Amino acid sequence: MPIQTIKWVNGSVRLIDQTKLPNRLTYLTCRDVKSLWHAIKRLSVRGAPAIGAAAAFGVLLGIKSFRGSTRAAFDKHIKKVSDYIATSRPTAVNLFNALAQMEAVLKNNPKADLKKIKALLHKEAMTIFKEDQRVCRKMGEYGAKLIKKGVNALTICNAGALATVDYGTALGVFYAAKKARKKFHVYACETRPLLQGARLTAWELMQSKIDTTLICDSMAATLMKQGKVDIIFTGADRVASNGDAANKIGTYNLAVLAKHHGVPFYIVAPYSTFDLTIKNGKQIPIEERGRDEVINFRSVQTAPKKVKVYNPAFDVTENSLITGIITEYGIIKNPTRKKVKKVLGK
Amino acid sequence: MPIQTIKWVNGSVRLIDQTKLPNRLTYLTCRDVKSLWHAIKRLSVRGAPAIGAAAAFGVLLGIKSFRGSTRAAFDKHIKKVSDYIATSRPTAVNLFNALAQMEAVLKNNPKADLKKIKALLHKEAMTIFKEDQRVCRKMGEYGAKLIKKGVNALTICNAGALATVDYGTALGVFYAAKKARKKFHVYACETRPLLQGARLTAWELMQSKIDTTLICDSMAATLMKQGKVDIIFTGADRVASNGDAANKIGTYNLAVLAKHHGVPFYIVAPYSTFDLTIKNGKQIPIEERGRDEVINFRSVQTAPKKVKVYNPAFDVTENSLITGIITEYGIIKNPTRKKVKKVLGK
Repeated sequence: MPIQTIKWVNGSVRLIDQTKLPNRLTYLTCRDVKSLWHAIKRLSVRGAPAIGAAAAFGVLLGIKSFRGSTRAAFDKHIKKVSDYIATSRPTAVNLFNALAQMEAVLKNNPKADLKKIKALLHKEAMTIFKEDQRVCRKMGEYGAKLIKKGVNALTICNAGALATVDYGTALGVFYAAKKARKKFHVYACETRPLLQGARLTAWELMQSKIDTTLICDSMAATLMKQGKVDIIFTGADRVASNGDAANKIGTYNLAVLAKHHGVPFYIVAPYSTFDLTIKNGKQIPIEERGRDEVINFRSVQTAPKKVKVYNPAFDVTENSLITGIITEYGIIKNPTRKKVKKVLGK
Repeated sequence: MPIQTIKWVNGSVRLIDQTKLPNRLTYLTCRDVKSLWHAIKRLSVRGAPAIGAAAAFGVLLGIKSFRGSTRAAFDKHIKKVSDYIATSRPTAVNLFNALAQMEAVLKNNPKADLKKIKALLHKEAMTIFKEDQRVCRKMGEYGAKLIKKGVNALTICNAGALATVDYGTALGVFYAAKKARKKFHVYACETRPLLQGARLTAWELMQSKIDTTLICDSMAATLMKQGKVDIIFTGADRVASNGDAANKIGTYNLAVLAKHHGVPFYIVAPYSTFDLTIKNGKQIPIEERGRDEVINFRSVQTAPKKVKVYNPAFDVTENSLITGIITEYGIIKNPTRKKVKKVLGK
């Protein structure tokens, strides 16, 4: 069982501070909504499913600061907390889906008194948390079937235990394959600018004794040309209703390379990462982050201080470049709007 | 006029220590062959044409340590010096071409006495140096014609003043376009692992007031999809007789992306970078460098210390992905063995 990234403990959110990895394994305890918002914003907790769980727990933290006495005041307060949490990051849809699920509890239980509604919100947050565990295992099972003996797989960013509350999405495939005693090897792209691949993926796969080689993002093309990549698995931060998928910057690059070299390219994403309200990837807002991420690495300056910088955190891969999307309901092969609908059954 | 990277001053080689850029502009003085060998090895001086000039100067440094009195002993000594310098880096052919040119002086002047042969070697080194200046300007002229008004160009690594003794190869195109008062903008890929794009290219283009935006290597794909890249120029470390080109790792990645997005992809390389003795890119030895470059950035650890690492310093782009190779003899369009032969006239 891989490491646990986020947990609700004694009325607080306890999470691994991922900005400190791989140098130090330290935990942050968020006791109020503001500290949780900052933990999401500065990427102490990241990864679409983990952000979803964090958001749900954030609503529970919000309950603690309620000082009123009526349901109406409570609902207004929770709505305000939820709107605030929603401003932490724009791309991962799990954040908004989890908040919507929490708000639906209010809407669906208008008669519940304060004690009851608080208990229901608590239950819902735990459901979101546990559901992520269940779907990680399910996706892992489907994905592991694609891991043939001796395979070289490649992944980018961190879609693992550190990005979810359990097994991970893309890395969940590897954990499931390892559990099934399959032999395989993983190339981890370091994932500039914040090096989640180097700092987090390499770290957590090594913790689980999965054979891993670290590369710079620009080296994947050469590996593919050499025939050293048999299959690619990445996570996603939002999948549109037609199967277009937003994920960490560099994912689209890999998808184009995969097409050119005939390498199967899979996205691993639970139902909670789908945004069925949007037609395609063009409607996904892409977070642009600060220049400091590109011109410094931690305390070390890597470029002239005054240089202009373009720093999109995500990119969008069109469905035509995706071999399949692995969900807890099965694999959506060569995704289109129709096939997404069919597999997700909605 | 951009900055001068390498110079022969008072019997020594004076060069910018590029490992210290962009934080500090410092110079190294190499007074003997060994210190020059280390300067090449650890990338204080880098870039195929600059390495060629450094190698020729290295032979001159070798003259200083000759203690014998006969031509035969001298020739043997110089051959030994040359063989030693040749072990510093394996990919850039300019290194071997410059050394071969220096050795040819010995062969072509068997009757020259010691004083005379030393003078001839000195003259030859200066010819190699000056020839690089001339060809940089010439390539710049040809390339600048491809820069239309308002163009967004993209480049990787550093193929500029810091990589040559003058204008640069790929960046020479930009200097020539700037001189011709053209308006354009350059995206510089940061170029992991050693960040020559961030540290060197951004720095030298900004010194010359060329409008430059820094990106991570994995972001080029998204820029191309957005239609924000009109043309790509890169240097080369060795070009085979059929036009296949080895260059900094990540170049092949860009070439595949360029093909997918219909963006013209140019290599800028002087005759001295061609290796007409080899049939194609498969025969180019690719230097693999140490793991420390990938798991640390300067003093900062970026990945688990014990992770396996694959770190090829170069990749090979097949001629079919290259729109043209810009040489001092003109542009070799859609390069093939036949066309290379025709333009280079050899």
